[in-house]
Amino acid sequence: MVEQTKRVFIEEIAAGHHVNDIFVLAEKNMAHKRDGNAYLNVTFADKTGRIKGVVWDNVEPIAAAAEAGDFVRVAATAGEFRGALQMVVKSLAAVEPDSVRPEDFIAATTRNVKQMFERLTGLTDAMQPGPLRDLMAAFWADDDLVAQFKRAPAAKLMHHAYIGGLLEHTLSMALLADKIAGHYNRVDRDLLLVGAILHDIGKTRELSYGHSIDYTDEGRLISHIGIGLAIVESKIGAVKDFPAELAALVKHMIVSHHGAREFGSPEPPKTIEAVLLNYIDEIDSRMNSIREFMETADPSARWTSYHRLLERHFFIGDPPTTGV
Amino acid sequence: MVEQTKRVFIEEIAAGHHVNDIFVLAEKNMAHKRDGNAYLNVTFADKTGRIKGVVWDNVEPIAAAAEAGDFVRVAATAGEFRGALQMVVKSLAAVEPDSVRPEDFIAATTRNVKQMFERLTGLTDAMQPGPLRDLMAAFWADDDLVAQFKRAPAAKLMHHAYIGGLLEHTLSMALLADKIAGHYNRVDRDLLLVGAILHDIGKTRELSYGHSIDYTDEGRLISHIGIGLAIVESKIGAVKDFPAELAALVKHMIVSHHGAREFGSPEPPKTIEAVLLNYIDEIDSRMNSIREFMETADPSARWTSYHRLLERHFFIGDPPTTGV
Amino acid sequence: MVEQTKRVFIEEIAAGHHVNDIFVLAEKNMAHKRDGNAYLNVTFADKTGRIKGVVWDNVEPIAAAAEAGDFVRVAATAGEFRGALQMVVKSLAAVEPDSVRPEDFIAATTRNVKQMFERLTGLTDAMQPGPLRDLMAAFWADDDLVAQFKRAPAAKLMHHAYIGGLLEHTLSMALLADKIAGHYNRVDRDLLLVGAILHDIGKTRELSYGHSIDYTDEGRLISHIGIGLAIVESKIGAVKDFPAELAALVKHMIVSHHGAREFGSPEPPKTIEAVLLNYIDEIDSRMNSIREFMETADPSARWTSYHRLLERHFFIGDPPTTGV
Amino acid sequence: MVEQTKRVFIEEIAAGHHVNDIFVLAEKNMAHKRDGNAYLNVTFADKTGRIKGVVWDNVEPIAAAAEAGDFVRVAATAGEFRGALQMVVKSLAAVEPDSVRPEDFIAATTRNVKQMFERLTGLTDAMQPGPLRDLMAAFWADDDLVAQFKRAPAAKLMHHAYIGGLLEHTLSMALLADKIAGHYNRVDRDLLLVGAILHDIGKTRELSYGHSIDYTDEGRLISHIGIGLAIVESKIGAVKDFPAELAALVKHMIVSHHGAREFGSPEPPKTIEAVLLNYIDEIDSRMNSIREFMETADPSARWTSYHRLLERHFFIGDPPTTGV
Amino acid sequence: MVEQTKRVFIEEIAAGHHVNDIFVLAEKNMAHKRDGNAYLNVTFADKTGRIKGVVWDNVEPIAAAAEAGDFVRVAATAGEFRGALQMVVKSLAAVEPDSVRPEDFIAATTRNVKQMFERLTGLTDAMQPGPLRDLMAAFWADDDLVAQFKRAPAAKLMHHAYIGGLLEHTLSMALLADKIAGHYNRVDRDLLLVGAILHDIGKTRELSYGHSIDYTDEGRLISHIGIGLAIVESKIGAVKDFPAELAALVKHMIVSHHGAREFGSPEPPKTIEAVLLNYIDEIDSRMNSIREFMETADPSARWTSYHRLLERHFFIGDPPTTGV
Amino acid sequence: MVEQTKRVFIEEIAAGHHVNDIFVLAEKNMAHKRDGNAYLNVTFADKTGRIKGVVWDNVEPIAAAAEAGDFVRVAATAGEFRGALQMVVKSLAAVEPDSVRPEDFIAATTRNVKQMFERLTGLTDAMQPGPLRDLMAAFWADDDLVAQFKRAPAAKLMHHAYIGGLLEHTLSMALLADKIAGHYNRVDRDLLLVGAILHDIGKTRELSYGHSIDYTDEGRLISHIGIGLAIVESKIGAVKDFPAELAALVKHMIVSHHGAREFGSPEPPKTIEAVLLNYIDEIDSRMNSIREFMETADPSARWTSYHRLLERHFFIGDPPTTGV
Repeated sequence: MVEQTKRVFIEEIAAGHHVNDIFVLAEKNMAHKRDGNAYLNVTFADKTGRIKGVVWDNVEPIAAAAEAGDFVRVAATAGEFRGALQMVVKSLAAVEPDSVRPEDFIAATTRNVKQMFERLTGLTDAMQPGPLRDLMAAFWADDDLVAQFKRAPAAKLMHHAYIGGLLEHTLSMALLADKIAGHYNRVDRDLLLVGAILHDIGKTRELSYGHSIDYTDEGRLISHIGIGLAIVESKIGAVKDFPAELAALVKHMIVSHHGAREFGSPEPPKTIEAVLLNYIDEIDSRMNSIREFMETADPSARWTSYHRLLERHFFIGDPPTTGV
Repeated sequence: MVEQTKRVFIEEIAAGHHVNDIFVLAEKNMAHKRDGNAYLNVTFADKTGRIKGVVWDNVEPIAAAAEAGDFVRVAATAGEFRGALQMVVKSLAAVEPDSVRPEDFIAATTRNVKQMFERLTGLTDAMQPGPLRDLMAAFWADDDLVAQFKRAPAAKLMHHAYIGGLLEHTLSMALLADKIAGHYNRVDRDLLLVGAILHDIGKTRELSYGHSIDYTDEGRLISHIGIGLAIVESKIGAVKDFPAELAALVKHMIVSHHGAREFGSPEPPKTIEAVLLNYIDEIDSRMNSIREFMETADPSARWTSYHRLLERHFFIGDPPTTGV
Repeated sequence: MVEQTKRVFIEEIAAGHHVNDIFVLAEKNMAHKRDGNAYLNVTFADKTGRIKGVVWDNVEPIAAAAEAGDFVRVAATAGEFRGALQMVVKSLAAVEPDSVRPEDFIAATTRNVKQMFERLTGLTDAMQPGPLRDLMAAFWADDDLVAQFKRAPAAKLMHHAYIGGLLEHTLSMALLADKIAGHYNRVDRDLLLVGAILHDIGKTRELSYGHSIDYTDEGRLISHIGIGLAIVESKIGAVKDFPAELAALVKHMIVSHHGAREFGSPEPPKTIEAVLLNYIDEIDSRMNSIREFMETADPSARWTSYHRLLERHFFIGDPPTTGV
Repeated sequence: MVEQTKRVFIEEIAAGHHVNDIFVLAEKNMAHKRDGNAYLNVTFADKTGRIKGVVWDNVEPIAAAAEAGDFVRVAATAGEFRGALQMVVKSLAAVEPDSVRPEDFIAATTRNVKQMFERLTGLTDAMQPGPLRDLMAAFWADDDLVAQFKRAPAAKLMHHAYIGGLLEHTLSMALLADKIAGHYNRVDRDLLLVGAILHDIGKTRELSYGHSIDYTDEGRLISHIGIGLAIVESKIGAVKDFPAELAALVKHMIVSHHGAREFGSPEPPKTIEAVLLNYIDEIDSRMNSIREFMETADPSARWTSYHRLLERHFFIGDPPTTGV
Repeated sequence: MVEQTKRVFIEEIAAGHHVNDIFVLAEKNMAHKRDGNAYLNVTFADKTGRIKGVVWDNVEPIAAAAEAGDFVRVAATAGEFRGALQMVVKSLAAVEPDSVRPEDFIAATTRNVKQMFERLTGLTDAMQPGPLRDLMAAFWADDDLVAQFKRAPAAKLMHHAYIGGLLEHTLSMALLADKIAGHYNRVDRDLLLVGAILHDIGKTRELSYGHSIDYTDEGRLISHIGIGLAIVESKIGAVKDFPAELAALVKHMIVSHHGAREFGSPEPPKTIEAVLLNYIDEIDSRMNSIREFMETADPSARWTSYHRLLERHFFIGDPPTTGV
Repeated sequence: MVEQTKRVFIEEIAAGHHVNDIFVLAEKNMAHKRDGNAYLNVTFADKTGRIKGVVWDNVEPIAAAAEAGDFVRVAATAGEFRGALQMVVKSLAAVEPDSVRPEDFIAATTRNVKQMFERLTGLTDAMQPGPLRDLMAAFWADDDLVAQFKRAPAAKLMHHAYIGGLLEHTLSMALLADKIAGHYNRVDRDLLLVGAILHDIGKTRELSYGHSIDYTDEGRLISHIGIGLAIVESKIGAVKDFPAELAALVKHMIVSHHGAREFGSPEPPKTIEAVLLNYIDEIDSRMNSIREFMETADPSARWTSYHRLLERHFFIGDPPTTGV
């Protein structure tokens, strides 16, 4: 099948543009005007964002042509409606998934997934024999879960918000945990490592990440902490005679990894390992978030633009000498 | 066996008193003085509170005489040490559980447990046939869980902090849910009722309530929300073909019943039923807490003393005319 | 007089539209350009919102043609100015109030005002004879106040923000109070009922609700709590020998009904009835607010859009099977 | 009548002391032991504090001998009960109020009340003729209110917590308002002055200040803001044709003088005068509070002890050279 | 040199306008399109605001024509891009600074700088002889610093955000300090005066205020508190035998003048003078901020628009009778 | 000189004990009774805490016998006064410092100070040649400062609150910084290292740590951030041509190391290195604080007691099998 090249990305579209290109049909809803005629509200997505659209003509055949989640070829004109861009759609047709480049539609890690995963299993292979290593083995033996784990993003926005982001974040935390565990006494390295690897496992079901990233119903209703608890519980059940107290300590790291109630953890960290895990998670999320933000800055800027959530500009330093 | 009458309660003990009575041995820890000699730190409990004690002489036989959790007969003198009462123990011996009145050691609901439970099952029997009623049937069929549910308190302090308190709180909420569900449209009465009955089910394992009320390790590490999710998950698994979305809606009520992240819920209420459940829980906890507080006030007082947590005095009104 | 049909509503106007229709002239202010020439800034309103406008030509006759608050027929072209819609007005003329349909300009309850009010007075007729019932009779005997009470909205935005909204909210709370009062002992049903009916009585003067809803000067300066206190004080003065303590308890419910200082109550609830009143107010406001928000959602959506104030999406559930 | 000299003050009593002196009987409540016998809980007060007491013997005659609020001669022995001092009362008899020195029982301003009041009326006499000056005249013409105003404290604790404290605080604020009003344009000096004088007028009824200072029922239920509004409303009613807008501006200063909702004001300051009034109130309260706190410090200390509410030590500076 | 008159200000530019006028080139960054061609992002500024622009053609000569900070004559057409105005630049050339009116580009105080400064030095001349007066003399002897001090704004936004604003704010605070110092005992007038004059001295380097106002790198990294400490330290070093304790008291006023940690002060005010200084700063900043906000209101409006930061409308009162 | 052995420590003293031992005379203040007679308030300290005392007899000779800060031999009887222990002093005499063991009076690190310092200078010796290494060399060349740095505690309470604690905390952070710097790109290892070593340098003067640990006046007034800035500024001045921007980046790490304004940093971290430094500081402080808290727990306890500041119990785990 001939691959169709995508030429226009959503972030580049401006009012007045005529567009004929491929997008993900992210949402599709029928509505009615006051005169009773139907029209169709749609949302298109690609890796650079989302854009609303509307179909005034040929509504019914177009509504029947594709389902939410499909790739579609769209012919449309961009206009402004109430301060936002809107695509007025002339035609829309489903496109074979095999004929598009997935990386045009959803961002992905630039790192090697296979190598990252092997590095992670290398760390668990080096654990002391016992129930914690058996628990990790039970995880790695679940092919479906591993496949999700390799593909899931770590967030919808903010940090590691791309395919493979969960694995990238997890590996980085595991390596950091490994370094810090030896710095302090009283720390159970293997327990901390298990916490680093499993703390966000619920993200595999909290988010959907087919052709775009969004929350699942289950994610919005139960949160990745609630989902993670259920996944861990079922895997612990698969390890023979897993000690009850150790099970509670592992689950405590899922429950407490956000550090405080106001950040979504029903209990704050109460073990040395849970305290460290929370810090390692904060460091890795924050560092990745800031560095991603810096990378979007003008290459010649000495400061980033204002970061709304962190409420500050970040200092980048001198521009390269090849700048203007 | 002859029942041993308890004559002295902990809240009545003052410095200088000689005590010879029965208590729960709540804690027992060996320690050593600077000269190397061992001594024993103990804590005694009854329904009116807890008191520390110390054993200087005959340490080893006394340490061997009873375990934490046992009923013990204690001969001791009360003194003050660093601003707190302390019992200097002369002798201590285990007492047969059958020979004491349990209600002397841990407070219990004054209402009829059997009748309360029947009233609750009456409500679930009246539910529409379907997966929610089946789910409740699965709960009521688990004799161990029902036995815990009938006995558990609803809290360690604050409100319904007595044997049977969880059932009392649950029934009150279920009756209130029943009244309010009909007041608003868009409310699924049965779903709300299930939420009212199950929202605190994790308290059955978050707290221990043998001879005194305290948190369990599991409770401190995972919280009653985490425990409740696991219990509900296992019962849902016992109902054939329980719909996945309905399962998420039920679990959402466990997850969100504290109303906001800062109160320990990983997600805030996002369904009409979860919003109502949170309010019903707040009303019933608050009302019971205030009324219990009013009952401890001087009968002739027009205002309660200052309530530290709620940061106010409550108005009681005119004293009965038979007062001073 | 022939009724003039309004065809275009403000929420439908987009840049480029030519409009010739009837609006409320909500604001009118003369201003001057740098060259010294006068122009007129205006704001138009109807039940769907507000829109700014400007008059460049014929400024003086147009300024003289109508006052703020009048109905006006406007001929104008919609454009965009600094990111917001703006009507460039060509002509503007006052219109007889009798010739328009009021419901086009300010939203109103869909329920029967007369029936709601009778249901409410039915509740107060059933009160125990005594000062509280006499107080309510004094309210109902004040025709002007009753007329305002039947017409006032319960808020400018948020919940029950329409003509008759205050009565609707008040009746709903009174019925809920009636149900909950019997659930707990120590609750004075009649006192709670009076609180439910009077807690927002100051809204009758805090808001103006002629042809559109806004705050009055008095409302912004004194708040509906301050206004409500004055209204209640004057009515209590009209009841012979109203007991001083009971007066303080009634006024306390006005003062404390927002529940805490940070929500605008100078004192938090300190009586059982005031505690319950605060919860009943929260439940009814929140429930109405969420349900109104759900009704604005796309009929086929499973979740609402993001609710800025409550900081979450709400779950609606499956779309009707007749959807796309 | 011979004046009885008080020799012992409550702050000086220690365990083991035998006391025979005069106090205010602040509270008196009958209670019963488990054996059914009655005893009497009492609280005594003088200007240095409060102390609990108990009557075991001759309970009934002693209970009949005096009412709460009376001066009493007490013979008692001080002991410790549960970490607090307690007077075990042997005898108790009412004492004629004329025979005691009131200043032993409730602290009072050290400044001349008559002069302070004349200085205040001097300021209002200098106001522009018009409704605001008429309003102040209406206040000064109310002898009962003026008597309360001269006697009331400005608080129960914290600052100006003594007889005459309200007048002292009010005068200080009025003088400060006078100085600052001229510093900024757009400020209506007379309006600000009225605000400074009336903002705490509700304290005259929020507090009781007979033989000791406490909150009244009305104060706890309605707050001095609610009470102040009612007082101002009634006085405005006594001024012929007081302009409605000006009335709202005066009442706004009562409503908003705490500066923000979380400090008890239903509305924040929205006029220039209300903004200034809030700052002047904060400065005068804080300055008086800090200086009172410094005066309780050891004369040779360079820093005060830790101020719990303000969460810091305050710097006093070098001790006088005559110190140790 | 002939002065070039500026006719168009940024706040007046709308989409579609053709502009040919002088601006400050505030920022200039080279970027590249996907096809590899370079383009130039620019920002223009004048006293009414900032506007973005882009150069598509003649990129290199234009990039070389001027540096950030230069005055430039620009020919451009205004359009809208993603909801914001954007100038599409046709030509751009540097303009001699001497040929423009600086007051067109950066707002300045309307008051007489020389007179304000003399009034301020009049206050310090009247101080008691001693180290504090010597310290002020050391400041006034530093011509560079005085020149900056006379020119600096007091803020980038919010209040006194114009050339000379720091001097205006400082003088107003010094005069207010002078009035209030005498009102309370225990206040060291000269110390308070020094605090009023020096508290914001770090603003001279925290902000840049050449042709527009912005933060310096040092300002963003160290804050005006950190910079002010360094300036004061160096001047104290220039006074012979300045007492160490007095130095700490002066520096404490720099450190604590924001009043609390959450507002950026590492320590809260701990001396009487620091407490007063914080209030005087708040009053003067707030008063100026509100009055500036009122001045931007429609002259006929009775209320200002909503103040986002202070979260309220402010009452202005009746419009002048000459209004519409 | 014969060393005097201390036998009794303050934490062991109870009411009724007769004490004759050596303490630090921490405070000494003359006061007067109502009858005009002088008495002396004193505070004694050793490494286990502080205790108040009073001298009733021989006041003047005793007051003259020793100054605050001296070691004294005290003969006294312990009693209780208003709920706290109080030493009634019979005699008090100064003791030669050389005759006591300093470690009895102020706790010190158990680690080798010389080795810790060498390990730290080893890290700075390995830095890249350049201004940062020169800056560290300037610090290490200042013998007085190094002597203070080796001796200072890192806090008065909370964590590392003992002689040598600052060095211990600094070394731990430097080693951790070394490990983490390599984990992320964009991190300047040497800059981070300098931040780790200097961030708390102001503690050398914020605290006094002669015979006991307390805040200095300078510390309370300026904070260790303000003091640290001054120290760093003076050392930067000692390095020839230290780049201005690098100076600002170093000072930024002092300013921002508490992470947020509410924790005392005038600016939040705005560079990658400052963000990491804040986390490393939090980890090391928190880890040390929790481990110190665990070490005070009963050796057989599975949970610590409640940690007031961190608001939780911490899990310790199973007691050693040699327990009771």
